[in-house]
Formats: sequence, structure tokens, C-alpha cells
Amino acid sequence: MSSGEDSLIARYFKPLATDPGALGLTDDAAILSGGADDIVVTTDALVEGVHFLGNDPPETVAKKALRVNLSDLAAKGATPAGFVLTLALRNVDEAWLAPFAHGLGDDATAFGCPLLGGDTVSTSGPLMISITAFGRVPRGSMIRRASAQPGDRVVVSGTIGDAALGLAILTGRMAVNDGAGRDTLIGRYRIPQPRVGLANAVRAHARAAMDVSDGLAGDLAKLCAASGVSAVIDAGSVPLSAVAHELMMQGKANFEAAVSGGDDYEILCAIPEDRFEAFTRAAADAGLPVASIGGIVAGAAPPRWMNEKGEEIALSRLSYSHF
Amino acid sequence: MSSGEDSLIARYFKPLATDPGALGLTDDAAILSGGADDIVVTTDALVEGVHFLGNDPPETVAKKALRVNLSDLAAKGATPAGFVLTLALRNVDEAWLAPFAHGLGDDATAFGCPLLGGDTVSTSGPLMISITAFGRVPRGSMIRRASAQPGDRVVVSGTIGDAALGLAILTGRMAVNDGAGRDTLIGRYRIPQPRVGLANAVRAHARAAMDVSDGLAGDLAKLCAASGVSAVIDAGSVPLSAVAHELMMQGKANFEAAVSGGDDYEILCAIPEDRFEAFTRAAADAGLPVASIGGIVAGAAPPRWMNEKGEEIALSRLSYSHF
Repeated sequence: MSSGEDSLIARYFKPLATDPGALGLTDDAAILSGGADDIVVTTDALVEGVHFLGNDPPETVAKKALRVNLSDLAAKGATPAGFVLTLALRNVDEAWLAPFAHGLGDDATAFGCPLLGGDTVSTSGPLMISITAFGRVPRGSMIRRASAQPGDRVVVSGTIGDAALGLAILTGRMAVNDGAGRDTLIGRYRIPQPRVGLANAVRAHARAAMDVSDGLAGDLAKLCAASGVSAVIDAGSVPLSAVAHELMMQGKANFEAAVSGGDDYEILCAIPEDRFEAFTRAAADAGLPVASIGGIVAGAAPPRWMNEKGEEIALSRLSYSHF
Repeated sequence: MSSGEDSLIARYFKPLATDPGALGLTDDAAILSGGADDIVVTTDALVEGVHFLGNDPPETVAKKALRVNLSDLAAKGATPAGFVLTLALRNVDEAWLAPFAHGLGDDATAFGCPLLGGDTVSTSGPLMISITAFGRVPRGSMIRRASAQPGDRVVVSGTIGDAALGLAILTGRMAVNDGAGRDTLIGRYRIPQPRVGLANAVRAHARAAMDVSDGLAGDLAKLCAASGVSAVIDAGSVPLSAVAHELMMQGKANFEAAVSGGDDYEILCAIPEDRFEAFTRAAADAGLPVASIGGIVAGAAPPRWMNEKGEEIALSRLSYSHF
């Protein structure tokens, strides 16, 4: 009796619905218990040709779709609790769906974030994957974007700009001879590493936080605008991978593209000075490097980016924009 | 400093984010307090050309996108708590977005279901609106699809088949001379009436429930399959609107299309015999007619549809399928 959609769901997605609240994907809704925690809700969608390439492996598309949401949860200090999936497909292509579901299932298990429900629809246009993910924080403890204060350190995790370089390679805008470096950059574009290991440290120490998805420069400007503050950034302190640094030395990549390119999925946060050491230690314990790149200052002006001579760098572009 | 997406959100959608947990749509995530309730989560997406027509008024597209989710919440016995929205647009067309946001805001207010967050992305394909909606029920009291029992009455709210006839008119497959009847049917297709007024009665009295979105026949079959039961339906008891009945008398519409056409957004439920009177009274108090159309019986066979002579009707098609 089941329609094509139902058998598609039963075959590919039911194995991912390991949480009792998912009701085996046989109901119209799922159950999420609140209890003493707040539920943190975040939504991010990927569109073929915009957020991923049509020839990206289905496993990596699935992982990216979930991970960009896990990145938001981590930046809010939340522990993953589950997700719902809307999948818009042109047709039921087993050769695409099977590895997609496999990649999604692997990450759902690895990050403790089971599938709770969703909807599958047909489209004549690009594939689209929209995920709404849920996390938990003790009541009232979600770290917001709008609460940075003058005097806080501006801190970022990992390295910045790798994914934008990976995309430049994949779209033929840049050639990289170093095979291992090339793979690293493409991997950073295709499979972000959500900093879930930093969530507890963010919740314990950060005053404000967000994830870097649209470009560090633009996202910092958003954090400052939301908080009613400004910032002064030491461009030389922005953490770069060895391969990104090398490409800049060769003149193949430039700093502005690195800080405005997006897809980093690192955590950007404002840490009170007296918490910085503890935050750095907690991050090291989690095996994740963090770097202090400047400070929050009073004012409503856009953040200022300074070079090693103390001169301001003018950034002509801050982030990726859809429209 | 804001990108095109941010100003679009600030202009059109921030006014809809009236819940404190939405943080004015300036954060990466929203906060949903659980407390003593369970959170009921449901997801439904609309695709242009599939779930709505490209020339449908933007207000009605917005209302339909939210209402199909509110319909799920009502069928689960849940009270609306809020929603997140993923909007895939080809471009920022103010003439479309302004009435879309207006229609969405009107319904968010009318149904007490505020916007909590979302994502706006660009697509080269059909417009797509994906909504994940949240409702609350006292812990453990969500009404499921899989719990119908032999002896229960099969009950449906409102009238069945009107939306399918409305779509037939809009796509030129049917001509209706009666102007008022025509408008009624088109209205039922474009703006479903989620039966939120029945949610408490469903929670108080129903053993199992779901909303009718893909066609009564197919959805009943799903409810029976999930519950491990069958059903016997009296086709003559299926509630029809006056105009649908008239079109069937004229031979312009047929019964099978009415019960397999979808887009009804009525509530289908299994009510224990000793609760039927109380359920009917509660529905009448809410101003919503409900009709008993048959009974749940033991067995694993598909539900049987009987005509007035007690003969079985063979339905060749049960519901809409995307694939």
C-alpha cells in the first residue's frame, strides 16, 4: 500500500531514526522531550550549485548538510539532540540516495544526532537539503550572538579560508600542484568539521559566539552589530593552514578571499579576558586549537582589520551573499 | 554591513518573530523551552508546480505552507508553539515577498504560532518553502498513528475531496459554472483550514489520528498499516460538500478522485466506541463537524470500501505520490 515516498523513507532513512521520539518515521510528527533543558533550534539548507556542486560525492553532501547545522549548535554551546530533514529530489536515484543516506547515518551516529523525521518532495530544479537540528543546553545558558562586550577577546577556532580555496580548486579558478594540500582544501570545502568538542568550553567561558559560515569578516561584523560593539582585528593573527599560507606566499591566494570566502564552520567568539586562559586550556583538552585575533571595542563602526604595521586594511568584500 | 539575505530577513520576517525565543532573528539559533510538555515536531515542504501553482497568490502560498504543518500538529493533539522556515527563492522579488510575508504573519498571529528562525537560500529552480513546526502536548500524550484498535470508529472531520476539485478547476481539467461553488473549491485547495480547534478533543478522545494530506483512502491505509489493523468504510458516509456532491451528481466529479486526491487537511482518527459521543460533542462545541465513516477491524488487509448495496468498491488509486 505504500507510495513511492513511503518506501523510499522506509528503505533509506528508517535505519537512521534510532531515537524513540522518531517513532520509526511512521508517524506525522516526532516527539522531543524538553525537560529541564532548553531546546536550541537551528536551520540550514544546502542547494545544489550554491552550497555544493552537482558532482560532489553524495556522502559528503549529506555530511555537509548535517554538519553545517551541528556547527551552529556547537557555537551556541549546545549538545546535539536530533534533526529533521527535508529532501527535494528530481527523481529516486538509488545510486545517489544510497550513499547519501549512508553518509548521513554515519554522521548521525558519530555526532549522537539521530534523524527524527522529515519530508521528501519532488522538484524539477536543483537538489535541496534542508535540515532543522535540535540541541540541548541547561535552561537559559545558550550563548548568543548579541552579548559581546568591549574588552572581550575575539577568538576563532581552527583555520580560516581553507574551504574557500577548496572551492576555488573545484571550480577551476585555482590550480594547486601539492596533491596532499589540494586534498586538504577540497576536504575542508566538502566535509566541514563542526567544532562540537568546543561546545562545553563555549558555554562555560564565551560571552558571545556564532559559527563562521559566510566569511570571517562578515560574520564578525554581524556579531558586532548584534552586540552594539566594534572590534579591532590583527590580520596577522588570523589562523591559516600551512597550505593556505603557502598559497598566499606564492601569490595564488589572497588574505581578503580567505576571510570573506565562507564555508569555514569554525567558531567565532568573544571571551572575557579573565576567561581566555581557561577557554584556551579547555580547547586544548578537546584537541582543538583556538587563536586570539583581536579585541572587542566600544562603538558602532564596522570592525577594523590592521596589518603588521598597524595600518588599516580595507576589505572590499566581507562575506558571501545569496542575493 | 548586512548582506542581501540579512536585509531581506530584517525587512520581511523580523516582524513575524514575536516570540522571545526567536531572539529577533539576529542569532544563529532559537530557544524553545520544553518544561513539563513534550515538543511535537513536524515538517512539510511545498514546491512550486507540485504543491502550489506558480500563479497562486503569494499570501495563499504562505498560508498553505504554515497550515499544512498546523494540520499535522492538530491531528497529534498538539497546541502550536512556533515554526522555522526555509525559503528557496530565485531572486528577491518584493512584489512576491511582501504579500508572502504578510500572509505568513497574519496566520502566525491567528494561530498563535510565531516564526522562530530559518534560512533563506537562492535556487535556480522552483520556489520551495519548507516549514518545521513545533507544538506542545502534556508529556506522553501525543496521539499517534499506530495505535488504532479493532472496534474503534473511523471518524473524519469536515468534508473530503474539495481541494482536489479546486485543483482540477485551476489546472483546466474541470469547468464549474456555479461561481460561488467554484470559489469554495479553489479556496479549499489554496488555503487549507487546519483543524486546530479539534486538537484538544483529539487528545482527549482519539486512540489514533493523522491528518488527511495525500488522499483519504491512502492515508487511512497508512493509519491501518501502522496500527496493524484493517477497516471497513461506508462510502456513502464520507462527508462531501454540497458543491462536490452536486458535481458528482452531474458526472463531472467522481468519488474515487475525491477520496484519493489529497490536500484535504482534515483529521482522520480512530475513536473508541464509548468515546464517540463525547468526541462528537466536543467537535460540535468547536464548531467543526465530524462524521463516522466506518470501523476499524482486525486483519492486515487494506481497508475495504463498501457502497450502499454492501458491495466492495475497488479503488484503483489511493493517494498522491511524489515518485
